[in-house]
Amino acid sequence: MENCIFCKIVSGEIPSSKVYEDEVCIATLDINPAAPGHTLIIPKEHHQDLTDDVDEKLLGHLFKTAAIIGARQKERLNAEGFNVIQNNGEVAGQSVHHLHIHVIPRFANDGVLPLWKPTEPSMEELGAVKDLLK
Amino acid sequence: MENCIFCKIVSGEIPSSKVYEDEVCIATLDINPAAPGHTLIIPKEHHQDLTDDVDEKLLGHLFKTAAIIGARQKERLNAEGFNVIQNNGEVAGQSVHHLHIHVIPRFANDGVLPLWKPTEPSMEELGAVKDLLK
Repeated sequence: MENCIFCKIVSGEIPSSKVYEDEVCIATLDINPAAPGHTLIIPKEHHQDLTDDVDEKLLGHLFKTAAIIGARQKERLNAEGFNVIQNNGEVAGQSVHHLHIHVIPRFANDGVLPLWKPTEPSMEELGAVKDLLK
Repeated sequence: MENCIFCKIVSGEIPSSKVYEDEVCIATLDINPAAPGHTLIIPKEHHQDLTDDVDEKLLGHLFKTAAIIGARQKERLNAEGFNVIQNNGEVAGQSVHHLHIHVIPRFANDGVLPLWKPTEPSMEELGAVKDLLK
């Protein structure tokens, strides 16, 4: 897609720190990592985000690749774990509107923020939301 | 798996606020949501996390289900976007060791923390990590 920075990274028009490539996707380092080794899984096909009707088979491939990269982060960077994060919409922190998955290696006391603040809704509040979503 | 709280939720032994179920997985509200409507996608099969050799087809199904739930959060809760998050290891915030995916609806000024603090490594630092991961 014209003027899409990730399409240009996929095509090689913009250089990147690629760590993996196959016929379906690439994996490249995030230039503003949450922690060293933070990697992006980017499909070669352009999709905006998960609100596009993305093929289930493609999703399986992308998240299996995320698992492979996470395993490398553990083996080769001595990460103790990893987060797999996929954001949809600017309000959710998505800045490039080409579907991508963050794989963030995690280390003890790494200073990466806790992901969210848990809340404690009542059973009534949960029930009201359940009725809307089910 | 014995003593796994999510296996007990899947079997119905422990009640939950289920919003979706098929032959492969369930989706149920998180009782400590980051935002109202925060939903967990839980496979019926027990896997610890993505470091288990999880089948690509199962991953496709789970993340497609996450997309379906995210679309419902937008349509029915008026969310403007959503985060899809899967944590591996306690250091990454995983508290139940049965593979699961968080789908968190997002709203303008919802007070949900920014997911991480971006850093600015040098090209040398990025290059060193790239050599380890590729």
